Amino acid sequence: MTVELISVGTEILLGNIVNTNAAYLAEKCAGLGLSCYFQSVVGDNEERLTMVLQSAVERSDVVILSGGLGPTEDDLTKEVAAKVCGRSLCMDDKSKERIAEFFASRDIEPTENNWKQAQIPEGAIVLDNDNGTAPGVIIEDERAKVILLPGPPNELMPMFEDKVVPYLERLAPGVIVSQTVKICGVGESKAETVVKDLIDEQTNPTIATYAKTGEVHIRVTASAEGHKEARKLIKPVVKELKNRFGNDIYSTEEDTTLEKAVVDLLLANDLTFACAESCTGGLLAARLINVPGVSDVFKAGFVTYSNKAKRKSLGVKKSTLQKHGAVSKETAAEMTKGTAFVTKADVTVSVTGIAGPDGGTPDKPVGLVYIGCNVKGDVTVKKYQFNGNRAKVREAAVAAALSLMRGCVLEYFSKVTFGKK
Amino acid sequence: MTVELISVGTEILLGNIVNTNAAYLAEKCAGLGLSCYFQSVVGDNEERLTMVLQSAVERSDVVILSGGLGPTEDDLTKEVAAKVCGRSLCMDDKSKERIAEFFASRDIEPTENNWKQAQIPEGAIVLDNDNGTAPGVIIEDERAKVILLPGPPNELMPMFEDKVVPYLERLAPGVIVSQTVKICGVGESKAETVVKDLIDEQTNPTIATYAKTGEVHIRVTASAEGHKEARKLIKPVVKELKNRFGNDIYSTEEDTTLEKAVVDLLLANDLTFACAESCTGGLLAARLINVPGVSDVFKAGFVTYSNKAKRKSLGVKKSTLQKHGAVSKETAAEMTKGTAFVTKADVTVSVTGIAGPDGGTPDKPVGLVYIGCNVKGDVTVKKYQFNGNRAKVREAAVAAALSLMRGCVLEYFSKVTFGKK
Repeated sequence: MTVELISVGTEILLGNIVNTNAAYLAEKCAGLGLSCYFQSVVGDNEERLTMVLQSAVERSDVVILSGGLGPTEDDLTKEVAAKVCGRSLCMDDKSKERIAEFFASRDIEPTENNWKQAQIPEGAIVLDNDNGTAPGVIIEDERAKVILLPGPPNELMPMFEDKVVPYLERLAPGVIVSQTVKICGVGESKAETVVKDLIDEQTNPTIATYAKTGEVHIRVTASAEGHKEARKLIKPVVKELKNRFGNDIYSTEEDTTLEKAVVDLLLANDLTFACAESCTGGLLAARLINVPGVSDVFKAGFVTYSNKAKRKSLGVKKSTLQKHGAVSKETAAEMTKGTAFVTKADVTVSVTGIAGPDGGTPDKPVGLVYIGCNVKGDVTVKKYQFNGNRAKVREAAVAAALSLMRGCVLEYFSKVTFGKK
Repeated sequence: MTVELISVGTEILLGNIVNTNAAYLAEKCAGLGLSCYFQSVVGDNEERLTMVLQSAVERSDVVILSGGLGPTEDDLTKEVAAKVCGRSLCMDDKSKERIAEFFASRDIEPTENNWKQAQIPEGAIVLDNDNGTAPGVIIEDERAKVILLPGPPNELMPMFEDKVVPYLERLAPGVIVSQTVKICGVGESKAETVVKDLIDEQTNPTIATYAKTGEVHIRVTASAEGHKEARKLIKPVVKELKNRFGNDIYSTEEDTTLEKAVVDLLLANDLTFACAESCTGGLLAARLINVPGVSDVFKAGFVTYSNKAKRKSLGVKKSTLQKHGAVSKETAAEMTKGTAFVTKADVTVSVTGIAGPDGGTPDKPVGLVYIGCNVKGDVTVKKYQFNGNRAKVREAAVAAALSLMRGCVLEYFSKVTFGKK
């Protein structure tokens, strides 16, 4: 079964934003066993959108459009899709009610154009939007299933996950099952080298690697008659990957992020956590706090961007800062020890580095980051050199901090197990 | 003059990589005054690539293809382009020589298929590649100029900049200039209503609204013979938008984010800042710290997710937490006052709320957030009700905190100016 993606939006045509929705949808569709042969981007223009959608419904089984479902006059994806599929638009009472509730809960008066979002092509399936006002739509045209999703990623992603995936799974003959082996602390080219022979040999299941910041995901995808048969094909491959990557695999579960794996590890070992951040400035705490239930382990976080805050909140010595600088192994060590002293947390992590664009020197260039981790008195400090702009360096540092913390906790317990503690 | 982008590559179709080349080329082309109405992605497949390229040369003046110029059999962009334009491929001696030099300088023996890269469509313009082996190509077909660029960004970008830009500048008459008016604290539909008459009336410049989390951007785009003329068309429209939105506009600069505007406001008024976060868990600090130079204003941040941390780090009273709960007006007020007391910062912000998915009650549902702001002793606390999942509630709370903080600082100084302080 083939799928085609159409992104609607002037911002993409003008290059104001990168088309991350298309990458997300393409990856998800590949995981579902759909073959994506075409992706297009077109603006909010009736004639051109009609032209693109017309060819898409002729040549693909499923067409997914994203964007252009807003309340403004510019937004005409739904109108064009209805026309191409020969349907009229009717007011959907349930959607209207949901939109009214959305505004009432925020104590805002909806304007007249908000009701445009409640209009649905005749006979279409409505996909409720739990994160915004624009409902999604599936039009079951005889040529293709035409699926309309809102453009904002935080509306599109949960809607696709919760409502479109089950729909597509019912359409496909036989099943496609994927399992993702998630690895941290190993670079993409190294991971690729390790699995190259498997990628070359395998046809069912297929094996593909995806690089994420500080992580590599290896997706194993099998097609079979039933779920049971597909899982049987996947199992030995995942086992082989576990042999090759060992402890670097943090999860084989779809929903488990690196931060969730770390929180689960802390919970399982009854450990509390605290952190002190300089260049990452709260990002590490924020990523961990995105895990529901983190309150059982998270004691406190400190954003100590200035030297004064490092001294005052964490007790880093003035002499250490003067002698070695704020970005040094010594400061990172004192930060993590200070955090443990102040919070009494079992595991503490510190991050200090030069995120740029300024502040770099030949000795300490932009991208240099020290990360300290303390597990019940065992202190490790690692030096990293990241590439990219300020945001990229900070993101990479957060991923490295999570990997390091995970590694240190695992090592601590392996020592305990082997009687070294 | 219109331009169309075709990205050739299976990695993009599978969602393995995000199509950053298209964003780069689109932005560059917009800056050159070319109108981009279509972008496509297609794999290394002769039939499908032919189909896409055929429509492109029929409907656009310039077609830029990227990717598929490699040495392997899979790579067939040049072969397809030559065929669509009715040209044969001939060996280009200069390109062959450059490829030989490229390998010699790296002490590598070229393989037979490397010479495929030196084959150029008859009569085409060759674009030397200073960073790789695949030369770029311009075929001046009578329907469209067809430009072929290598896929790797570090080859594509300098080739486009150095060789394609001068070529396109000679072709294009006139320029396109945009300016963005950035608004915070106003919903998209409301903003749209305020400018509806302008959107309807204007054709040059055009006016379009873009919704961001907690913000609306209004883009004013003019086409004219020169930059000066374009700016002259934009100026009165931006002035009118300033009249209508007043203080809700935080910037009209392309590079200025809301967090940068807030940091600039603090810097301009010589104010220091600190924050205490519960549900946002470091995200507010992280967003502010993404602004280079923030160290001059940022004193400290506290992630006080637990009640204990709120008491210990900020001195929130046990009785307040017991009587009103952690998510309350009273706790938000004590958090922001406590942060000011501990850090001596001029401006402090506190965020406490229920991000979900658990923890909501009928009285205090998921999405309820209190934000406190203290400007030199003037304390404001506002109640918000956000919708969406955990990540969306937290993101919306951060945007609201930045807006509130900006509003409180502006109000404080307007009172000072009017002699009320």
